[in-house]
Amino acid sequence: MIRAALKKVVVIGGGTGNFAVLKGLKKYPLDLTAIVSMADDGGSTGILRDELGVLPPGDVRQCLVALSNSSRLMRSLMNYRFENGGLGGHSFGNLLLSALEKVTGSFEKAVEEAGKILYIKGKVIPVTTHQVRLKMVLNNRKVLEGEKEIYLSQEIDQGYKTIYLEPFPKVNPGVIDEIGNADLLVIGPGGLHTSLIPNLLVEGVCEAVRRSGARKVFVVNLMNRKGQTTGYKTSHYLNELIRFLGEDVFDHILINVQKPPKALIDVYSAEGDLVENDLEDERVVFADLLGRLAEESKKDLLKRNLIRHDSKKLAQELMKIVDHL
Amino acid sequence: MIRAALKKVVVIGGGTGNFAVLKGLKKYPLDLTAIVSMADDGGSTGILRDELGVLPPGDVRQCLVALSNSSRLMRSLMNYRFENGGLGGHSFGNLLLSALEKVTGSFEKAVEEAGKILYIKGKVIPVTTHQVRLKMVLNNRKVLEGEKEIYLSQEIDQGYKTIYLEPFPKVNPGVIDEIGNADLLVIGPGGLHTSLIPNLLVEGVCEAVRRSGARKVFVVNLMNRKGQTTGYKTSHYLNELIRFLGEDVFDHILINVQKPPKALIDVYSAEGDLVENDLEDERVVFADLLGRLAEESKKDLLKRNLIRHDSKKLAQELMKIVDHL
Repeated sequence: MIRAALKKVVVIGGGTGNFAVLKGLKKYPLDLTAIVSMADDGGSTGILRDELGVLPPGDVRQCLVALSNSSRLMRSLMNYRFENGGLGGHSFGNLLLSALEKVTGSFEKAVEEAGKILYIKGKVIPVTTHQVRLKMVLNNRKVLEGEKEIYLSQEIDQGYKTIYLEPFPKVNPGVIDEIGNADLLVIGPGGLHTSLIPNLLVEGVCEAVRRSGARKVFVVNLMNRKGQTTGYKTSHYLNELIRFLGEDVFDHILINVQKPPKALIDVYSAEGDLVENDLEDERVVFADLLGRLAEESKKDLLKRNLIRHDSKKLAQELMKIVDHL
Repeated sequence: MIRAALKKVVVIGGGTGNFAVLKGLKKYPLDLTAIVSMADDGGSTGILRDELGVLPPGDVRQCLVALSNSSRLMRSLMNYRFENGGLGGHSFGNLLLSALEKVTGSFEKAVEEAGKILYIKGKVIPVTTHQVRLKMVLNNRKVLEGEKEIYLSQEIDQGYKTIYLEPFPKVNPGVIDEIGNADLLVIGPGGLHTSLIPNLLVEGVCEAVRRSGARKVFVVNLMNRKGQTTGYKTSHYLNELIRFLGEDVFDHILINVQKPPKALIDVYSAEGDLVENDLEDERVVFADLLGRLAEESKKDLLKRNLIRHDSKKLAQELMKIVDHL
């Protein structure tokens, strides 16, 4: 019996957006790779960068947990945050990656070893292993320094001149191969300027995406972020990506049609509004992609990320595309 | 074929002293248990106790590493100490145990889970799971509070009235069973007042040792610690243990006969002198138990623990006793 080679799916992103895609696809027989942005500099990750000089572990940690087949306890451990003292705010998984980077002398090796400890399915690859900082020049010439500052800015939707990584980083060579050999490339969901675009700012990534023979899917965010993408519709997201990619590379655009309960939208209104759709070409796939609200979350409506993609539904839609390749 | 049950060896101690015994015995087909003192409150361990309210992880970590069958990288990772910032001084293994305690809600469960992550042979059991502090009242009525203060004191060899744990802790129930079911009990080497005796101060431990049908071995330290056991001979060590145990329970007393090089003794002279032997009864086993000096250590004679037991030689002597049980 000849076994067909597994289809290769490469997911580009970072942060919580990636989590649902990876967690959902993990269940299927696929050759799965997560390419992760290295621009994070907030919170625990920012402190570790500053104090220890390590590469930012936060986004990688989330991808590792998403792909982990280890016990629930191990996954809880990775996301556990110390509460007090000098350790306060650090997630254990970030400390694991930073200690492994120190012991092995390489962030890539650290990610690989952490992947073994967590029995991950597939691979997690940092888009670059250079220490970079994300910068943005607004239309009013104000310069935002660092992902955190950009994430917290309330005036990006007034327009920006440019966004870039400093210093301009060389790509992690494995990334080009992964993109080149992919059968399916998935971009999004995730913070547009803080998670998705930072991958495209690394030397060679956009060209690799353009050249890749892979089917390319864009998973559009559910919510806009106030001050960043206020009032954006699906076409705005698409056009922002095209601005960096150089052309419209997407074969499919995955859009959620299931409206969240009004009560939830109200809770979110301070943070942002729903992304409305204004695209209607044949590439658009409409589907119910909305995550169900866990019972415990209903009691605590102030918790973040209440409106999010459902990993199972998302994976089912992506697998329909994979099955037709 | 009927397979004989493995001999049960229980090692009582904590800290670096235990390390050589456990590392050596790990290689043999034994049912191995380390019972670990919970009095440590110095360095990284002390900060974690104070800031997070966790039980002291340091001694347990060392035992786990000694018994670990995981990769060299994993063992290095456990002992890796962060150098800068709020994490400065913490060993990664201590953070692992503390985070696991928080996530599982129990130190014992944390030790068990860490044991799985590290593929340990045998079991590591904290002697108590109560939060205790070691205290000592000197002959001059001065009270020393905490293991660290006792370890640093320069006047214990002037005599002390009493040493105790506060509050008087209940024993971890598993400990009594382990001691009761042991075929061989090994006490030492290790800090007399800071690692060995603290185990004997826990309710029920001494009685369990007295009642146990196990063969009992005392492994005498190589070096005295200045200000604590200055000028102690083997009989002093033995008598100190008997003072707490209530009777002389030992069947064998393992004493090193191989003198370390004079240069090394000189380096150590500020910290302490060699333990001389003044015991001659038939229980005494004389053997070369001295660790060879690693090449890299020769260049750095100020490094601590240059005069230490050799884990292989120690295990060989202990196995001679086991083989005659």
